[in-house]
Amino acid sequence: MDFDAYDHVRPIRWLGDRLELLDQRILPLEEEYVACADADAVAGAIRELVVRGAPAIGIAAAWGVVLAAQALARQRPGIDSGDFALAELEPAIATLLKARPTAVNLAWALQRMRRAMQGAGVDWLPRLAAEAEQIVSEDLAGNHAMGLAGANLIEPGSGVLTHCNTGSLATAGFGTALGVVRAGVAQGRIARVFAGETRPWLQGARLTVWELQKDGIDATLIADAAAAHLMASGQVQWVIVGADRICANGDVANKIGTHQLAIVARHFGVKFMVVAASSTLDMGTATGADIEIELRHADELAAVAGKRHVADGVKAWNPVFDVTLAGLIDAIVTERGVVMAPQASKMALTFVAKGVA
Amino acid sequence: MDFDAYDHVRPIRWLGDRLELLDQRILPLEEEYVACADADAVAGAIRELVVRGAPAIGIAAAWGVVLAAQALARQRPGIDSGDFALAELEPAIATLLKARPTAVNLAWALQRMRRAMQGAGVDWLPRLAAEAEQIVSEDLAGNHAMGLAGANLIEPGSGVLTHCNTGSLATAGFGTALGVVRAGVAQGRIARVFAGETRPWLQGARLTVWELQKDGIDATLIADAAAAHLMASGQVQWVIVGADRICANGDVANKIGTHQLAIVARHFGVKFMVVAASSTLDMGTATGADIEIELRHADELAAVAGKRHVADGVKAWNPVFDVTLAGLIDAIVTERGVVMAPQASKMALTFVAKGVA
Repeated sequence: MDFDAYDHVRPIRWLGDRLELLDQRILPLEEEYVACADADAVAGAIRELVVRGAPAIGIAAAWGVVLAAQALARQRPGIDSGDFALAELEPAIATLLKARPTAVNLAWALQRMRRAMQGAGVDWLPRLAAEAEQIVSEDLAGNHAMGLAGANLIEPGSGVLTHCNTGSLATAGFGTALGVVRAGVAQGRIARVFAGETRPWLQGARLTVWELQKDGIDATLIADAAAAHLMASGQVQWVIVGADRICANGDVANKIGTHQLAIVARHFGVKFMVVAASSTLDMGTATGADIEIELRHADELAAVAGKRHVADGVKAWNPVFDVTLAGLIDAIVTERGVVMAPQASKMALTFVAKGVA
Repeated sequence: MDFDAYDHVRPIRWLGDRLELLDQRILPLEEEYVACADADAVAGAIRELVVRGAPAIGIAAAWGVVLAAQALARQRPGIDSGDFALAELEPAIATLLKARPTAVNLAWALQRMRRAMQGAGVDWLPRLAAEAEQIVSEDLAGNHAMGLAGANLIEPGSGVLTHCNTGSLATAGFGTALGVVRAGVAQGRIARVFAGETRPWLQGARLTVWELQKDGIDATLIADAAAAHLMASGQVQWVIVGADRICANGDVANKIGTHQLAIVARHFGVKFMVVAASSTLDMGTATGADIEIELRHADELAAVAGKRHVADGVKAWNPVFDVTLAGLIDAIVTERGVVMAPQASKMALTFVAKGVA
């Protein structure tokens, strides 16, 4: 398929000496880029959700390391050892790592950047920049591969429901779960696309349907609470979501509401697909019980677009991810392998035995 | 228990010649009443959600009939036959009936008003006003009874999750599901109260936690999509919701998202309670498949508090109720009987055989 036709949205622009991030807090009403001149600014942008989506966070953090490295090279010209530079950059890397706790891609991207410096000589800085470029191009190519692999599982004429935003805005382009939607629509396998609005941050309502609109893909927004009613109507055959972390046994951490969708899908015999880059695999974490779930501020539930609608003093509980147990998942799709009905042994066979993760 | 301690919120005020409705569209930020001088204004207020909640809609409509009757008596003094007045009032009653399609209490209240006129003589107008008063006082007394009956099912120290608003704002006072919460908290049976925000209209976020705050009841707001994660954490033992229509087999139409909560609750072994006045019973409707589900405008999903957050031209599907099948329900609580694990035969035995519905 013609992947270049899906290049309408560029959330991350590297300009050689600064990073520009499309401000996802104000989309789709305003399309504005936030410029980040140093690693602290990148960490802040990740924390404040200027950029979000597990792969996009990893990419932004990689460029954050490059910005820190450039600053180091300016302040201390003549560093000719990658290992020395790495030691100097560890505080900046630690700040980037702490920006969000749940997605594993962030740690994975930073680890790649670390490795690129290890043993490098005088060319440590260009090698670092090349590694960031490589992360971007691998992510994009991986998304294309996942799109085709995931679409391949879908019967022609199906309806799908997705959650949160897993598209160009969340990745280097094309998307993970939304890449499967794009490929499936292009191939005529997907006839109906529904998107959950994804409270509290409204990634579905603000980002996903906007992205799809730019591609000319017809999508219908629903309230998160309408998913069961939608599935009961028979209009949906697959739920397709991304992931922020996939454990060794196939348990998946993803946007709050994913677990609920998986339970409801199983109840109605609707299939459930998780689509994520292999960098999302965390084979060192045995099960979902070991994942730290990020709790964000109650105010994210109390206001929309800066306007408060909840009485002062009301308490809220705002976990922004949840864990879907492997037993509720029909397929985990990565660019380096698909696991049907995931469990620890299949995951190990597909990913560990082949050196993927 | 001291029911008078829960009289902080008065959504419907009858002033003898006009009806004042607390504008639930702008709560909790503003507390303003909308005055309705005739039945058309009441129908409009019901349609526009100035007043909402199945019992409250029925009560407002009853007063709407009184307003229409007063106008008739002014225009045509000397009418001495309730049957004659009723024939004249049928168009106004029809307008009120059409204001919302799903809740059965609206039709039930209007039918009571019709019956009050049938066979009445010169006193048809005071009889009509007395009937509206009676609907209000019965609703309040019924809510007190339901609160005690429902709380009785709950083990001390339990956590509960409720959905939408079923409190004073939705009824003549105290509430249905929220009445059970009030009674359960007062008795020490309920130790933790969670409220789903209830998109798109945010009844939970705007109304329920505000009402509970006025009573000094500690409640925690969650995104609708966080219910599975909450139940997985073990903090909730009962989901407690209201109903807009209960069928002969125990299927329940209620706010969108209820079905989903029931599926998720069953998955986690959390109990599911439906609390509603017997006026919500619709024994003439065999199953939920026969209920008309109101679809409201897509714009309700595209904006919050008048501010749009979705791109122009995006489609949305906005069913505002769904149907929970009886098999997912552990208890239906009314003021005139409780049915555990509802099914058609038990429903008939409890309600039809005793002349309740």
